Amino acid sequence: MSRRIVVVGGVALGSKAACRAKRVDPEADVYLIDRDEYISYGGCGIPFYISGDVSDVSELRSTSFHMLRDERFFLKDKGVVALTGTEVTRIDRQGKTVAIRRKDGTTDTLAYDKLVLATGTTPRMLPLPGRDLENVFTVANLHDALAIKEKVTEGSIGKAVVVGGGFIGLEMAEALADMWEIETSIVEVFDQIMPGFVSPSLATMARKTIEDKGVRVYTSEKVEALVGEGAVSAVKTDKRTLDADMVIMAVGVVPNTGLAKEAGLEVTPQGWIVVNDQMQTSDPDIYSGGDCAAVKNLVTGELGYFPLGSMANRQGRVIGTNVTGGSARFDGAVGSFVVKIFDNALAGAGLTADRASAAGFDAVGIQVAQFDRAHFYIEKEVIFLELVVDEKTRRVLGIQGFGGKDSGMVARINAVAPLLKYKPGVEEISNLELAYSPPFASAMDIINALGNAASNYLDGRYRPMTMEAFAACWENRSCGDTFFLDCRANADAQPFADKYPEIWKSIPHDQLVDRMDEVPKGKKLVLLCNTGVRSYEAQLNLNAKGITDNVSAGAGIAGLKTWGVDFGLDK
Amino acid sequence: MSRRIVVVGGVALGSKAACRAKRVDPEADVYLIDRDEYISYGGCGIPFYISGDVSDVSELRSTSFHMLRDERFFLKDKGVVALTGTEVTRIDRQGKTVAIRRKDGTTDTLAYDKLVLATGTTPRMLPLPGRDLENVFTVANLHDALAIKEKVTEGSIGKAVVVGGGFIGLEMAEALADMWEIETSIVEVFDQIMPGFVSPSLATMARKTIEDKGVRVYTSEKVEALVGEGAVSAVKTDKRTLDADMVIMAVGVVPNTGLAKEAGLEVTPQGWIVVNDQMQTSDPDIYSGGDCAAVKNLVTGELGYFPLGSMANRQGRVIGTNVTGGSARFDGAVGSFVVKIFDNALAGAGLTADRASAAGFDAVGIQVAQFDRAHFYIEKEVIFLELVVDEKTRRVLGIQGFGGKDSGMVARINAVAPLLKYKPGVEEISNLELAYSPPFASAMDIINALGNAASNYLDGRYRPMTMEAFAACWENRSCGDTFFLDCRANADAQPFADKYPEIWKSIPHDQLVDRMDEVPKGKKLVLLCNTGVRSYEAQLNLNAKGITDNVSAGAGIAGLKTWGVDFGLDK
Repeated sequence: MSRRIVVVGGVALGSKAACRAKRVDPEADVYLIDRDEYISYGGCGIPFYISGDVSDVSELRSTSFHMLRDERFFLKDKGVVALTGTEVTRIDRQGKTVAIRRKDGTTDTLAYDKLVLATGTTPRMLPLPGRDLENVFTVANLHDALAIKEKVTEGSIGKAVVVGGGFIGLEMAEALADMWEIETSIVEVFDQIMPGFVSPSLATMARKTIEDKGVRVYTSEKVEALVGEGAVSAVKTDKRTLDADMVIMAVGVVPNTGLAKEAGLEVTPQGWIVVNDQMQTSDPDIYSGGDCAAVKNLVTGELGYFPLGSMANRQGRVIGTNVTGGSARFDGAVGSFVVKIFDNALAGAGLTADRASAAGFDAVGIQVAQFDRAHFYIEKEVIFLELVVDEKTRRVLGIQGFGGKDSGMVARINAVAPLLKYKPGVEEISNLELAYSPPFASAMDIINALGNAASNYLDGRYRPMTMEAFAACWENRSCGDTFFLDCRANADAQPFADKYPEIWKSIPHDQLVDRMDEVPKGKKLVLLCNTGVRSYEAQLNLNAKGITDNVSAGAGIAGLKTWGVDFGLDK
Repeated sequence: MSRRIVVVGGVALGSKAACRAKRVDPEADVYLIDRDEYISYGGCGIPFYISGDVSDVSELRSTSFHMLRDERFFLKDKGVVALTGTEVTRIDRQGKTVAIRRKDGTTDTLAYDKLVLATGTTPRMLPLPGRDLENVFTVANLHDALAIKEKVTEGSIGKAVVVGGGFIGLEMAEALADMWEIETSIVEVFDQIMPGFVSPSLATMARKTIEDKGVRVYTSEKVEALVGEGAVSAVKTDKRTLDADMVIMAVGVVPNTGLAKEAGLEVTPQGWIVVNDQMQTSDPDIYSGGDCAAVKNLVTGELGYFPLGSMANRQGRVIGTNVTGGSARFDGAVGSFVVKIFDNALAGAGLTADRASAAGFDAVGIQVAQFDRAHFYIEKEVIFLELVVDEKTRRVLGIQGFGGKDSGMVARINAVAPLLKYKPGVEEISNLELAYSPPFASAMDIINALGNAASNYLDGRYRPMTMEAFAACWENRSCGDTFFLDCRANADAQPFADKYPEIWKSIPHDQLVDRMDEVPKGKKLVLLCNTGVRSYEAQLNLNAKGITDNVSAGAGIAGLKTWGVDFGLDK
């Protein structure tokens, strides 16, 4: 007799698991059940539908060959019975059935041999006064997408507030501001955007890009109420009131695990379904994955949470294989990500220094700046990477970066992410073998320079200063303790020395050894050049003379300017 | 007493090793000796200097901060004594000295504690009649670069022949044809361009791009003589005579290992210097690396040869660390590469199927086509990847691809290359965690699709046909044995069915199960769709009915058109 596979939830993981199961076992009865009428859509594409980069919402529901993924498609193309507008209300693990309720109110039970829970998440809605006002949206599904797009195309939205500075918040803010010229603000309760995903330094670079495009960003600021009559008209924070014709709530998600909990399946304290590396829940006939489940974080070894369409698809295939008798594995994830921010990309994988420290590592983040291609090649730009390493073991724990929206940034992140589970040391990054030719990389690529900088730091040869630390130091530059030694060519450095004669001096690196007596004594020196190469060499020259109370601005003046340090000079 | 480090050869590895040594041990006496006046230049940039992408040759000799890397720079900026125009004529291993001869003919001996041989290569010159004619060039150093650029800027070169269709040959052909509009031909003795680096299928895609840009490509063709009076005027091959005002010989390199051999150091039968994973030669006080040395091929475990500036730089740093008392390692390489071909990129890492078979693996190459970004995102293009796997062990041995010149191709190659030494299985590629968001990748990215296709093949579920095999089959389409079943939508497929009614039929995939009786019997079926997704599903539907004498065109019609299959239809 053919096996019956029932999949609950049909967006990313569910539809992938169902189709894979049917491909592996064409005899299987495969059901795909979703309470929504829309299934199998690219939810990650919603901000790009709002922005206009995706012109019609049906494109998010279509295959690459333009077939709409509706019930008919699943039946005819995939051999899967899709039941939309149908809710699974209960799981009977003993009887191996699920109870369903159709849109028309009729109910039924459906037997299963293997059950897949792909119930996803619900956007978190802050318990705020005014949360039920009109024009307050979350971004969870195509209904939201259609409703938001309708509002913005009407032209009635002059101002918008996005609550939350994570992935969806940033993408939505860009969509509203860039295409629709809506005056948009982001309010983030943490002290940086993308908290937990990148360091304060990289977050500030991304923030500056956003602000340069006219979006206001308020961090360390808590929304207290949404205000309005009928429709929202303002957002009240603990610091100000922002006019708003539209509010986008993008403050995270809550896993939809009610069914799993009622059925007595193991869930984490935070509410995610626990699965093993074959994506089985605590009931071996029930599988789960995607946004409602936790998988192993391959860096920490603990359970982690990676709610991404890419994870859901890969896990869905593993489940499809396993519910039909296979034994595919999904070991876990390291949390690779990338988000386009106007003309830039912010990306990473693994842990930030803060997260690594919280996980018990002796973590430090090393920052470098370098051209993305050979410096002599005609097209190139300076990009920024940060490597997070454990000081005790020299193990690489994560990598994050900020650069252009070309794929050059992901080309570096992708090179490190799959390695992280092998616990590479920094030397492996120094020797990392990227595809090289001048139009694509440097002979000593930024990724290698990053490994080199980290190993120099761990060897005690290099004392870097992060962009964040420099900025704080620059704010307090009049305190008298610090002196800035500029190692660039005199033409670049002299304007700074002229403007800040008390604290800034130009000694080009190739003159330093001969002019060592001009180096100020009794001051904490901050060594600077354009991207940190010459200032590092100057540090070595000073080390050799026993002058060690100095730091080198690791990402250089190029990094500091991108970060937003204001040197008070035009260039 | 400070240690004396002598480095012989100052282009890539040599200058890196010297500078790193001095940084690690500021007390060391470091000498960098080169017979040329030009040192520390980006040789890989020469084709881009010829093309005009690099405007002045000094840029290839300069740092990213525009300092010329000459003797003064090495002394003042790096603390390294560079002796240019100086040849090392002999190594005395007992006495630990080298004999040198200066440009002016004077000689001397120089003691060393550690010696580094970074002597590089000499371009191979075929022993052809006419090889000494004027305007016959190799592309080895800046003298060549200047000479070639001078000729092309004079405007006297109307036609050029490039002998050799490898990296340098392709880059030089593009430089001559694209910027200077020189009528350029490539002659390659093997039956494809980039032999040994990519499969015939990918090579043909690249070839078509080159030919579409007006460069003629002759493969399986041997140059027999260069013809001319004073200057070259033609190239005589075993098949034709090509007019040529300039000839570029790009037929590989010969390692400069005379010094090493005379000193009795171990070299391979092919003449490369043998080093261990600390880059030490058979004499522990003598190190080598870069283009004149062989390092371990991390896929085969045998010695391999990776003459790339990127390898030289990383190895140079390892040597710089080790000659100053450190113990850094360079494990080996997998041969990552990328070459820009007009608006495209051809890239890879590890072994091709042919090379893997030659190395004793039971190798197969699996090809896929897919958009490089989410298919619903506004900017995207179909790219092509091939995964080389061992059929017995499911181990991944290599990856190659052809796509746009954006960094999207290297973003995929880079994700796999660093893994190859860990002997990943195809399932690791299926689950590979790339940074995902719609402007950068698909949720199920092409790299995952590639792993999936390979695992489906190895599981006996998928019977693909390579582009090469399809092309041969299409040539013989009138033989009566083969029938083409087009699984695309009828609007796409019908023109083909109308043009080839005897051999081509349109059954859209979503109708196949219901129209199974229309599938021709007793024929070998070739299943087709745009990128191989629907034709694979059709194959599964046929499998389920016991119809298994069929293959699926893995890279689809998109791949076949890029390859150059002519279907005789406008679209």
